Amino acid sequence: MKKMEQLYEGKAKRVFLTEDPEVVIVSYKDDATAFNGEKKGTISGKGVVNNRMTNHVFKMMEKEGIPTHLVEELNDRETAVKKVEIVPLEVIVRNVAAGSFSKRMGVEEGTELLCPILEFSYKNDELGDPFINDDYALALGLAEQEEIDTIRAYAKKVNEFLKGYFLDAGMKLIDFKIEFGRLPDGTIILADEVSPDTCRLWDVDTNEKLDKDRFRRDMGNVEEAYEEVFRRLGLL
Amino acid sequence: MKKMEQLYEGKAKRVFLTEDPEVVIVSYKDDATAFNGEKKGTISGKGVVNNRMTNHVFKMMEKEGIPTHLVEELNDRETAVKKVEIVPLEVIVRNVAAGSFSKRMGVEEGTELLCPILEFSYKNDELGDPFINDDYALALGLAEQEEIDTIRAYAKKVNEFLKGYFLDAGMKLIDFKIEFGRLPDGTIILADEVSPDTCRLWDVDTNEKLDKDRFRRDMGNVEEAYEEVFRRLGLL
Ligand SMILES: Nc1ncnc2c1ncn2[C@@H]1O[C@H](COP(=O)(O)OP(=O)(O)O)[C@@H](O)[C@H]1O
Ligand SMILES: Nc1ncnc2c1ncn2[C@@H]1O[C@H](COP(=O)(O)OP(=O)(O)O)[C@@H](O)[C@H]1O
Ligand SMILES: [Mg+2]
Ligand SMILES: [Mg+2]
Repeated sequence: MKKMEQLYEGKAKRVFLTEDPEVVIVSYKDDATAFNGEKKGTISGKGVVNNRMTNHVFKMMEKEGIPTHLVEELNDRETAVKKVEIVPLEVIVRNVAAGSFSKRMGVEEGTELLCPILEFSYKNDELGDPFINDDYALALGLAEQEEIDTIRAYAKKVNEFLKGYFLDAGMKLIDFKIEFGRLPDGTIILADEVSPDTCRLWDVDTNEKLDKDRFRRDMGNVEEAYEEVFRRLGLL
Repeated sequence: MKKMEQLYEGKAKRVFLTEDPEVVIVSYKDDATAFNGEKKGTISGKGVVNNRMTNHVFKMMEKEGIPTHLVEELNDRETAVKKVEIVPLEVIVRNVAAGSFSKRMGVEEGTELLCPILEFSYKNDELGDPFINDDYALALGLAEQEEIDTIRAYAKKVNEFLKGYFLDAGMKLIDFKIEFGRLPDGTIILADEVSPDTCRLWDVDTNEKLDKDRFRRDMGNVEEAYEEVFRRLGLL
């Protein structure tokens, strides 16, 4: 699999075309951004952790019956994936109050929610990824009802699986963001990544944050946290 | 029906207890506020318009099979209503992009939506009535799933009815906010008000605004707009 023309450079990854029009190569950078690109930095080694962790999780999700974009890990930072049209929804699942939810709703960070919350943001950097609901997605033509139903069902299943998976490694899954894409035939598959960039993970005993919040909030030991997750998941 | 102790003073209405523990009297003020109370003013005659318009609409909604809190109009500004526990959700229905939707989503005011949007805000002045979704309402214990289903169905029916009702009077229903309450036996009924304070109404030919946006945006002729709606609905 050979990298050809760069298709897109995002905040954390680059996407390259290949000879196969149905396959692209995702290349994970060490670049870190927060607050819609306002804060910028580097987390050295992050690209490797996120690439390998995403692929490991996606392999497990396939076994659980959730189709993903994974084709083949090419090296530490690069993976061949099925090219999709990304559904412009950031699909967020929350088990415990944190981040923007805590701030907006006045619920202390760390509060267990009565039931998991699934929410959508409109993936649009210019607008700052605004929080929307299903009707917004339909009214703005972002997705069809059937797609939303599929995404919702997959996201719940991902949450149930990952909660147990991380707990077995001594971490609580507080919340996470995933993205879905459409294959040319319209099939919805899990795309993008699952990593400490996109999940809030807290140590099950001490509640120590082991995710990108360490970078967002200048807490220090950012690289160490990513390595620790990597190690606990047995990926090192 | 005699007013007893004041139960609550809101931004636009006062609520009084009566001898009947199941009935309260709502008294409509001319006070106007906007932007979560930051902007304050008076719209003289507003209380009369809103009281009579709400009661007229609620009578029609009852005929359409939607239970409401209306008991009896007592005078120009005061109405006896069934006392409810208000479900702390502002139920917003949008047919055309306007206001906060336009701003947040980058959609020009006046753009027809592909389908009506129903959304919930958490009715909480301290938090600034944040936009939420169904899962938030469940996870925060604001309402049960069954109540949400009922509210959603009623709100859609109210929208379909009111669109036609206002159109017959030469006005487009852009969006509106309603509230629902629980009777002691748990029944969900339409409560609060339907008025130019809570509906965006535009002249069908000129798109002239005939609602509280004239106050919010310092457009002048505020009283005249409320009177005009009143007149067009044949309530004068
Ligand atoms: N399988 C895929 N096919 C095409 N695009 C993808 C695929 N998986 C992820 N993407 C997109 O590629 C970009 C990845 O780069 P990233 O740095 O995360 O971007 P962003 O700054 O938009 O978050 C994202 O826009 C993501 O939606
Ligand atoms: N039938 C009812 N029983 C009890 N409370 C009601 C009823 N209808 C409306 N209310 C509540 O009474 C208050 C009306 O006053 P208002 O000035 O609109 O208040 P607010 O400043 O909260 O919007 C609102 O909080 C509304 O939810
Ligand atoms: Mg991204
Ligand atoms: Mg009110």
